[in-house]
Amino acid sequence: MVRDLVVIGGDAAGMSAASQARRLLGVDELAITVLERGDTTSYAACGIPYWVAGLVPHRSDLVARRAEVFRDKQQIDVRLHHEATAIDTDARTVSVRDLTSGAELTLSYDDLLIATGAQQVRPPVDGLDTPGVFGVQTLGDGQRILDAMAQRSPRHAVVVGGGYIGLEMAEAMQLQGLDVTLIDLAPQPMTTLEPELGALIADAIRTMGIDLRLETPLSGIEAGADGWVRAVTTPGGEIATDLVIIGTGVRPRSELAAAAGIPVGPSGGIVTDDHQRTPVDGVWAAGDCAETLHRVSQLPVSFALGTIANKQGRIAGLNLGGGEGRFPGVLGTAVTKIHDLEIARTGLGVREAEAAGLSVEVSSITAGTRAHYYPQSSEMTVLLVIESGSGRLLGGQIVGGLGAGKRIDVLATALWNRMQVEDLVQMDLAYAPPFSPVWDPVLTAARSAAGNAGRDAGKDAGPNAR
Amino acid sequence: MVRDLVVIGGDAAGMSAASQARRLLGVDELAITVLERGDTTSYAACGIPYWVAGLVPHRSDLVARRAEVFRDKQQIDVRLHHEATAIDTDARTVSVRDLTSGAELTLSYDDLLIATGAQQVRPPVDGLDTPGVFGVQTLGDGQRILDAMAQRSPRHAVVVGGGYIGLEMAEAMQLQGLDVTLIDLAPQPMTTLEPELGALIADAIRTMGIDLRLETPLSGIEAGADGWVRAVTTPGGEIATDLVIIGTGVRPRSELAAAAGIPVGPSGGIVTDDHQRTPVDGVWAAGDCAETLHRVSQLPVSFALGTIANKQGRIAGLNLGGGEGRFPGVLGTAVTKIHDLEIARTGLGVREAEAAGLSVEVSSITAGTRAHYYPQSSEMTVLLVIESGSGRLLGGQIVGGLGAGKRIDVLATALWNRMQVEDLVQMDLAYAPPFSPVWDPVLTAARSAAGNAGRDAGKDAGPNAR
Repeated sequence: MVRDLVVIGGDAAGMSAASQARRLLGVDELAITVLERGDTTSYAACGIPYWVAGLVPHRSDLVARRAEVFRDKQQIDVRLHHEATAIDTDARTVSVRDLTSGAELTLSYDDLLIATGAQQVRPPVDGLDTPGVFGVQTLGDGQRILDAMAQRSPRHAVVVGGGYIGLEMAEAMQLQGLDVTLIDLAPQPMTTLEPELGALIADAIRTMGIDLRLETPLSGIEAGADGWVRAVTTPGGEIATDLVIIGTGVRPRSELAAAAGIPVGPSGGIVTDDHQRTPVDGVWAAGDCAETLHRVSQLPVSFALGTIANKQGRIAGLNLGGGEGRFPGVLGTAVTKIHDLEIARTGLGVREAEAAGLSVEVSSITAGTRAHYYPQSSEMTVLLVIESGSGRLLGGQIVGGLGAGKRIDVLATALWNRMQVEDLVQMDLAYAPPFSPVWDPVLTAARSAAGNAGRDAGKDAGPNAR
Repeated sequence: MVRDLVVIGGDAAGMSAASQARRLLGVDELAITVLERGDTTSYAACGIPYWVAGLVPHRSDLVARRAEVFRDKQQIDVRLHHEATAIDTDARTVSVRDLTSGAELTLSYDDLLIATGAQQVRPPVDGLDTPGVFGVQTLGDGQRILDAMAQRSPRHAVVVGGGYIGLEMAEAMQLQGLDVTLIDLAPQPMTTLEPELGALIADAIRTMGIDLRLETPLSGIEAGADGWVRAVTTPGGEIATDLVIIGTGVRPRSELAAAAGIPVGPSGGIVTDDHQRTPVDGVWAAGDCAETLHRVSQLPVSFALGTIANKQGRIAGLNLGGGEGRFPGVLGTAVTKIHDLEIARTGLGVREAEAAGLSVEVSSITAGTRAHYYPQSSEMTVLLVIESGSGRLLGGQIVGGLGAGKRIDVLATALWNRMQVEDLVQMDLAYAPPFSPVWDPVLTAARSAAGNAGRDAGKDAGPNAR
């Protein structure tokens, strides 16, 4: 008997799962239908800022695999412009609207995977639909920004939001030759990092020529006589502009699941176990819409990250295909850059650690990315969050020049293995003058943290020759 | 009572130890004398190729801390141009020759640290002292090469040895505008990597315009009428040249210790415990001259690496200063580059693993350093050595473009924690298009290795969107 798998959402998690399940089960065992309300499968949402910046030439470069390929090569029935409108978990059916024809249909399933992704948390102001105001969620959003730049030759952009997407879009606008004002309601950009690093980032952004305005909420959007945006308003006054990019954060898109009685957890994501099963029989969830376990805090969390979506999709697909896979939880590792400044984090920040009931210490150092005498060495700051008493690493954050950001992976691997800072100090990491000082900055940070906490008799090993 | 610490060797290990001990004990408790037969303390031997290449402007840039600073700031009695000629472990004395005056003296010690470093294994041919033939061990060597280039405007260099130093010197000679012939007696360059990666490196080196000749031992040196080198000879014929760089490997400089009855192990290094104590009371050893434990094979090894020398020096200094430190062993992590090709390794290679009695499998993948659509993504190959049956990671090797090499640190951290490849697959590493594909190549390598070994039901998670 052929079982029916219905997948809601045709992006990273949904298509990874569908592909993985198909690899394990042929069409005589599993029929797979994917409902995607947009016009594209498996697109690289993280690449949109680089496409808008002009660094990626073609929209098609951002599509990992087209719907036709899934249909032809994998016999996956991908239905674009089809939106799931309701789930009946008793009848095991999904109500679907064909957005092209307006037709309504009902699909039966044996297994249902919800992979509805995340949605932007838009500022609570009127006028967000004014022409010239853009989100950065879909390829359509990117295309509209590029069209506006081609047609209107804007000279100034306001970017709302100083997180990952806000910084990436500020860079993109600058690379396109626009003057940029970046506003954020928080007292620092990148609020997922500690204030010390937020201040470093703020300084660097301003040095790049971006007009950064902190503690500045968006309070309104003003349109000109032609209907196009002409300014944003803030409590501090009006900012005239030609374009507005809404680069605020996202939250799990879990309403469809919640309406069907599928449990949604404290993070706003759909509750899942380590097989990506929800508590409702036959219903699975993966990706940005799903809640998962933070490996350090052991608390439920939701992150909108492509890495996690792909991994969870793969695990769901393994299990849906009759194999066995367990998702071991996340660290929330993330990296970005704005021009030459690289920014990364993993694990818990101070607030997250305290919210998890942990007592923490923070330690930071600044060192070179390369040997001090090697050309183009730049500064990088490494901040560690450690548990008081035990010295266990809880989180790490990095801000610095070329080669700084990906070093976060060493801290992520250390966190994955529940390392203590005094063990980290001794690790045998790679050194050559073009790559690192002889003590890699991550090790120097660990040495400083261990020393501060009295866990190490020596606070400085002296001259770092070689 | 003031105790006497004598340190033989004033480079990374010796000066790290002296500084660390001084930080813990003042002059009223510990007198520290350092014997250095050269003219410089704590110099960056690893930086010599970049100085010779013209990337580092001044010789002084390579000196981390001058002898005067150790004397003035730390009351460490550094004696340059003083060579230890014998050790009497019963009398606890060191015989010393002042190389400037020729005077002989004897120093008493309570504790003795041997940090004599490594010495080059020179090819077994006559004529290595011919003018125009240079080593790359000391700042003096570097100065002599630079002087030769300034005075003779050479057009062609032969570099002997295709390991780390050989590749770095080949790059340096090319950057200085010379034509380069690189000869090695092995069938591949970088013999510390598997043949598959050796072949990649060989191809890349040839594409860079280097005349690479493998299985080509140096059989002789020919001088011209003016006494300067004019050619090297090999079994395949003569290679005319203006300069010869001996870039062959090194071995522990342990003869002085051995002559004093201090045990030398199978690796040729001085036997030490995890406190950097030798088996002889009051005698310690650290750095390139010392033998240490390989964390994966649990066998004694010696590596000439600045990272290890600095770390062991620090541990010796902690213990000599009345503190407590343990050196936890090494992985042999190393990285280098030649132009835009980065090369790194950690842990055991196949031969090393088999020599340790382990049964191994090898798996490799090639992926992009960045998202495929992001500018300047280049290829990188990740090779994993895993234990058959258990799936435990035993070693990793990487060859690739910008950003490839330092990823070895993730594998080093995984090795440090005795991870298995199937656990590695799930790790939460950082992703953004300028930094990585959504599955970092290290994770893709782990996924492939786990899949090959039947440890994972899915060999491909399908479209890697985001």
